[in-house]
Amino acid sequence: MISPEQLRRYPFFAGLTADQLRGIAMISDEVSYQAKTLIFREGEEAQYLYVLVKGEVELLYSGGNEGDIADTFVGSIVQGEVFGISTMAGPFHLTASAKSEGLVETIKIEAAGLRAMCEVDHGLGYILMQHLAQALTQRLHEARIQLAAANKKN
Amino acid sequence: MISPEQLRRYPFFAGLTADQLRGIAMISDEVSYQAKTLIFREGEEAQYLYVLVKGEVELLYSGGNEGDIADTFVGSIVQGEVFGISTMAGPFHLTASAKSEGLVETIKIEAAGLRAMCEVDHGLGYILMQHLAQALTQRLHEARIQLAAANKKN
Repeated sequence: MISPEQLRRYPFFAGLTADQLRGIAMISDEVSYQAKTLIFREGEEAQYLYVLVKGEVELLYSGGNEGDIADTFVGSIVQGEVFGISTMAGPFHLTASAKSEGLVETIKIEAAGLRAMCEVDHGLGYILMQHLAQALTQRLHEARIQLAAANKKN
Repeated sequence: MISPEQLRRYPFFAGLTADQLRGIAMISDEVSYQAKTLIFREGEEAQYLYVLVKGEVELLYSGGNEGDIADTFVGSIVQGEVFGISTMAGPFHLTASAKSEGLVETIKIEAAGLRAMCEVDHGLGYILMQHLAQALTQRLHEARIQLAAANKKN
């Protein structure tokens, strides 16, 4: 468990009530990772939603079982952003791997608990899903910029 | 206005009540486009959410004002899918252009009205935002597959 105050500062939790923040804090923990650590692997069941408190995280993509593609850099997460967001949208399997660049500090939130809270409190679910959709839109934008640049080189 | 039954068959509206479907049908219209028509342009204000009823739509991306990138193909929309989804997640500007491949039939939903309905009915907002996040996750997956393939060629 962490203090609700630790969540309040992040845009992902903006607009939540004190009760909602307290609930999420109860299923959250602080976790640190050494540099160059694999935090989670693409294709695994999505068990946690992470908030990046300190450091930088790289997202890597290998196309799952669909080919012989080596890990491709598909974006980086900076301080204050959430990652492991496929934890919140079906089919609940991680769509990329996450690796710490340097030393990384995170808040790790139990995904099943967070999804359950959204089911009983649709106001919470609506806000979090909106923030999730915004984060996904941002990731999509980054992937497309890189794609356009890569196509230009070919 | 269309009939609520026209919405019920699409996965994006799965789980909605008869009242919720009726409300959305009231702000929806059927619109067709000839082949090779620009349905909307990247960067424009997002005014409508579209359901693709028939045909195929290409998504093109040019990086907005960030460079001299030509239109890059970033994915296609097939029958039954929604597009113009940046209409539902901030900052409410279209993140790609959409062009009809052949003749295209769509259902066009007023985005401001749909967002307003979500604000007063959080149960509706929660379901639609979940489906939106799933659609975005799918688009992200497609963009990353293409990115990994493009990087392999370089």
